[in-house]
Amino acid sequence: MTAKIRLYVEHPLGAGQSVPLDRDQAHYLFGVMRQGVGAQISLFNGRDGEWLSEVTEAGKRGGSLVAIQQTRALQMPPDLWVLFAPLKKARTDFIVEKATEMGAARILPVQTDFTNADRIRQDRLQAHAVEAAEQCGGTYVPEVAPLQKLERLLSNWPDRRQLMFCDEAEAGNNRSLAGAGPGPWAILIGPEGGFSDAERARLAALPFSYTISLGPRILRADTAAVAALTVWQQVLGDWG
Amino acid sequence: MTAKIRLYVEHPLGAGQSVPLDRDQAHYLFGVMRQGVGAQISLFNGRDGEWLSEVTEAGKRGGSLVAIQQTRALQMPPDLWVLFAPLKKARTDFIVEKATEMGAARILPVQTDFTNADRIRQDRLQAHAVEAAEQCGGTYVPEVAPLQKLERLLSNWPDRRQLMFCDEAEAGNNRSLAGAGPGPWAILIGPEGGFSDAERARLAALPFSYTISLGPRILRADTAAVAALTVWQQVLGDWG
Repeated sequence: MTAKIRLYVEHPLGAGQSVPLDRDQAHYLFGVMRQGVGAQISLFNGRDGEWLSEVTEAGKRGGSLVAIQQTRALQMPPDLWVLFAPLKKARTDFIVEKATEMGAARILPVQTDFTNADRIRQDRLQAHAVEAAEQCGGTYVPEVAPLQKLERLLSNWPDRRQLMFCDEAEAGNNRSLAGAGPGPWAILIGPEGGFSDAERARLAALPFSYTISLGPRILRADTAAVAALTVWQQVLGDWG
Repeated sequence: MTAKIRLYVEHPLGAGQSVPLDRDQAHYLFGVMRQGVGAQISLFNGRDGEWLSEVTEAGKRGGSLVAIQQTRALQMPPDLWVLFAPLKKARTDFIVEKATEMGAARILPVQTDFTNADRIRQDRLQAHAVEAAEQCGGTYVPEVAPLQKLERLLSNWPDRRQLMFCDEAEAGNNRSLAGAGPGPWAILIGPEGGFSDAERARLAALPFSYTISLGPRILRADTAAVAALTVWQQVLGDWG
């Protein structure tokens, strides 16, 4: 059974394995959550599934647990990338949180013609992905990639990875996912300011791209991310 | 053409109609957004569509516009209610925002067995719905109903309104929407703490309820709201 508190650790997990906690984790577990020696916590590391574990040492600057038994096998999400243009801080955090909950394998912030952000706090976004995985019962944490130019990513696009492209301007001009096959995929969420005409033409012309519409209203980017992931997960993902 | 700034007003709209602004609206338009006499603004009131309008008077405590021409007809969303259990402040705001963007007709906060909130700021939530409608290009603003007990709402449930019920505990136990018909609908989003066993049994036994799963991961309530609305809009709503 999964414990109420779930914690992501970098350390390997296995029966009888001792797992050290760093200062931040100890502060969270013993300070904030008021746990102590003997408390049961679920640990996961993105590789070895989820392990019911027991606190064996609780200090202000660290502590340790011992892994008792595996309570969940590693569940990999589908091989799905989520590409998005960073927004204001809170909305960017939300997109990372939501992509993690909804089952993305990798999160790629991209700069588009109308993106304002020229840098991101990659470490902070990665921490948000960890927190979302702890919350949503996942055993996998998607990697948040460094910020890169959309154009450069498209120029080096991996073979056979298909791209679902959500653009309000394309509503009604749907190339449905019905004909799309399984395999590696990516979803591109447009920036709040929309794509430039050049980007739109470039994206539509890509042989691996599918344009879909997300209804007649304009969605904020974080809403669009969840809606697009829902459409994809239902047709091609692990919601079947 | 829609102006860059969209503003919701209570006043009737029509060609040549003069529309007064209250103090808050004047502060927003002239103070925050730096508009003045002659500026073009899009107005909508939830009934008469969207009207391109021009500022004719700009003061600190008020102002007025004249409606020039209709730029969009009233677009009603489908007859869909969104029921949700209020959460912490920011997440509750987000659910109202997202339900508006995604095209709900009415938003009903409900108290469940595991809901902590015993009151809501209905005026603040309604203001969030207005703001979301201004942002998303909609011409309709869903009403936010007063907080009520779920049990009471179910006991007085309107004839022929179907209910889509999203419950993580029911994953895999899907009664798909495929067999569901059009007509008035409601979507119920579970509270973060889940439903009680009694509620779950009650909901499953309702003759007008459909249980659907939103994938193998646990979603936060605001994420679940967008995902559920996507599922519904694709099958039964106006995304077709």
